[in-house]
Amino acid sequence: MTLPPYPIRPDVLAFEPYAPGLSIDEIRARFGLESVVKMASNENPLGCSPLVQKALKDSAAYAFRYPQSGNPKLVAALASRHGLPPALIVPGNGSDELIDLLARVCPTPGEHNIVASRPSFSMYRIQSRLCGVAFRAVPLREDFSFDWRKLLAAVDHKTAIVFITTPDNPSGYCPPAAEVRDFAEALPPSCLLVVDEAYMDFSRDEAAFSLLPHFAGFSNLIILRTFSKSFGLAGIRLGYGIMPEFLADRLRSVHMPFSVNILAEATGIAALEDKAFYGETLRTVREGRAFLAGELAALDCRVYPSEANFLMFRLPASSGKNALQVFEELLSKGMIIRPLKSYGLPDHLRVSVGSPAENRLFLHLLREVLAP
Amino acid sequence: MTLPPYPIRPDVLAFEPYAPGLSIDEIRARFGLESVVKMASNENPLGCSPLVQKALKDSAAYAFRYPQSGNPKLVAALASRHGLPPALIVPGNGSDELIDLLARVCPTPGEHNIVASRPSFSMYRIQSRLCGVAFRAVPLREDFSFDWRKLLAAVDHKTAIVFITTPDNPSGYCPPAAEVRDFAEALPPSCLLVVDEAYMDFSRDEAAFSLLPHFAGFSNLIILRTFSKSFGLAGIRLGYGIMPEFLADRLRSVHMPFSVNILAEATGIAALEDKAFYGETLRTVREGRAFLAGELAALDCRVYPSEANFLMFRLPASSGKNALQVFEELLSKGMIIRPLKSYGLPDHLRVSVGSPAENRLFLHLLREVLAP
Repeated sequence: MTLPPYPIRPDVLAFEPYAPGLSIDEIRARFGLESVVKMASNENPLGCSPLVQKALKDSAAYAFRYPQSGNPKLVAALASRHGLPPALIVPGNGSDELIDLLARVCPTPGEHNIVASRPSFSMYRIQSRLCGVAFRAVPLREDFSFDWRKLLAAVDHKTAIVFITTPDNPSGYCPPAAEVRDFAEALPPSCLLVVDEAYMDFSRDEAAFSLLPHFAGFSNLIILRTFSKSFGLAGIRLGYGIMPEFLADRLRSVHMPFSVNILAEATGIAALEDKAFYGETLRTVREGRAFLAGELAALDCRVYPSEANFLMFRLPASSGKNALQVFEELLSKGMIIRPLKSYGLPDHLRVSVGSPAENRLFLHLLREVLAP
Repeated sequence: MTLPPYPIRPDVLAFEPYAPGLSIDEIRARFGLESVVKMASNENPLGCSPLVQKALKDSAAYAFRYPQSGNPKLVAALASRHGLPPALIVPGNGSDELIDLLARVCPTPGEHNIVASRPSFSMYRIQSRLCGVAFRAVPLREDFSFDWRKLLAAVDHKTAIVFITTPDNPSGYCPPAAEVRDFAEALPPSCLLVVDEAYMDFSRDEAAFSLLPHFAGFSNLIILRTFSKSFGLAGIRLGYGIMPEFLADRLRSVHMPFSVNILAEATGIAALEDKAFYGETLRTVREGRAFLAGELAALDCRVYPSEANFLMFRLPASSGKNALQVFEELLSKGMIIRPLKSYGLPDHLRVSVGSPAENRLFLHLLREVLAP
């Protein structure tokens, strides 16, 4: 590699270019297909709410205005939803931006470290690295549950943040809230715990799994939520963090003032209002998840218990095909799911719960691919 | 200040919370006004294009999908607009994100520095500081032109980036392209020159002012453009950088994959297609700028020459009122303009060019405020 004359941070030179996921358009063109179904990115199987679509249309004429910095109306709606003071809530351009801001604001590069599990959502590792902060990855147990003891052992007095995702990605595993609470209590107060609850509302019982009801009991707890999944706004980019007020103030002070776009505020508020769509989403995902899990098991796949809107599974050894082959064959039939090689799991596949028709189509195509 | 037990980077502790600008809603509520006009944020006086509004409505149903990482369709449209290879173009969540990415990717904190003028767009300073990179501010000349000699003197072998804005904010001053080219040629190749051309298309003669036609002659030049002004998409958040391919690759490799939302791609493409709206915007701004400049001068204001969609001016000493008083009195009459105290210019005001009716209203209210 010939280096240019201008400086590039040495650690950034080694970054791999991001390998974008496959889009419906690309697969349609590649295989000359009429219809392609994507069950790869944990998007909402019902699309987005009619109220959201109306809010978008109503806001269209205001697209030329800068958003109101800090998104006070949205923050007020979220505060009311969670019964928490607005001062604790920071919206972001997707939760991704909040993960990045936390990694920029809290640890001092070269001094502090960040701890997470392996595998876990890649953004924790990537943003740590971009910030020049040491990243420690602690393997999950073999059943994909968190190894609390090892996580705790990886934390030292220079650990700024521990990231965990509950329900976890890509496995769908979700520890009981009591377990996470015990872990949070065992952490030194000098270490922040970020509980990324992107998929929490899909769990069978939010009260039993979420750490949000316990938020007030901690001075070092951050909970991340997103509008990308249950609220169907992945394309709009909107997430938020609930965190101690001092930290929220610091994030607000460094936050780019207009990073959350004007439509995110309008559609976020509309999505919170459409309780019917939200309820139907949760019902569709929970029923679809149970249906898919049962049918995959009936195909002799190993299905991992999931509280999220996706299922991780392994193919039966008897199929004689590996995960990548099955992924590619499904692709050629117009079905996009997610191979997990990039998570270090070359034998595992992940499928997002779709609509009932999409779920049936996926199973039908998988049976074709696995047929002897 | 009591510090929390968890770490906050020491330099971030000193960040001032961002003071958000005033919104129409706030001023309406504060003064009990029916109608409030905002000429403070250099937004498009014609709003946004009907094609953009249609694109938003047509895209509403797809808000649940993640955007395609890298926004290939938008990049292709921009490449065709500028007659440049797509590999040189990187879109961002507003130009703000590109300023931030450049400050993260190029300089090594504690080693390199960043140079810009004072006053200049605050994001250059703020993001440098957030990245822990030394920031050197070189005063503009008294007439708000660039002091090329002093800028060059501030550059050393550890200067990673020089930022300049042409036309400049908040003055509207625009140097001829030949001057900027001479400066670019005088810079060492180890130093990147970022020319932020956010307001360039409002200039009387883009060919005479823009560095874009000279892009191919440099290996260390970056040009930033935005959809927030002439294309009327401030609320959507979309900007882009044109830069050497090696650097573009590095930015793409660290870029959060979905930072540009799905509607930004659709509306950006629509905005590029609506040549009639774009032309009408430029005509409205150029005519309004000439009209406002003449009328302000007739009121004995000192008006600074501007190639942008705003004018900076000083009040006549005879008025007996200072800039802040006039700003506040205009506010109470429902007219929001921009005081420039935050730019270190307490005696200057900035007004965005509005529609013809807005321009007349502004002048009418200013005459009232200045009347003896």
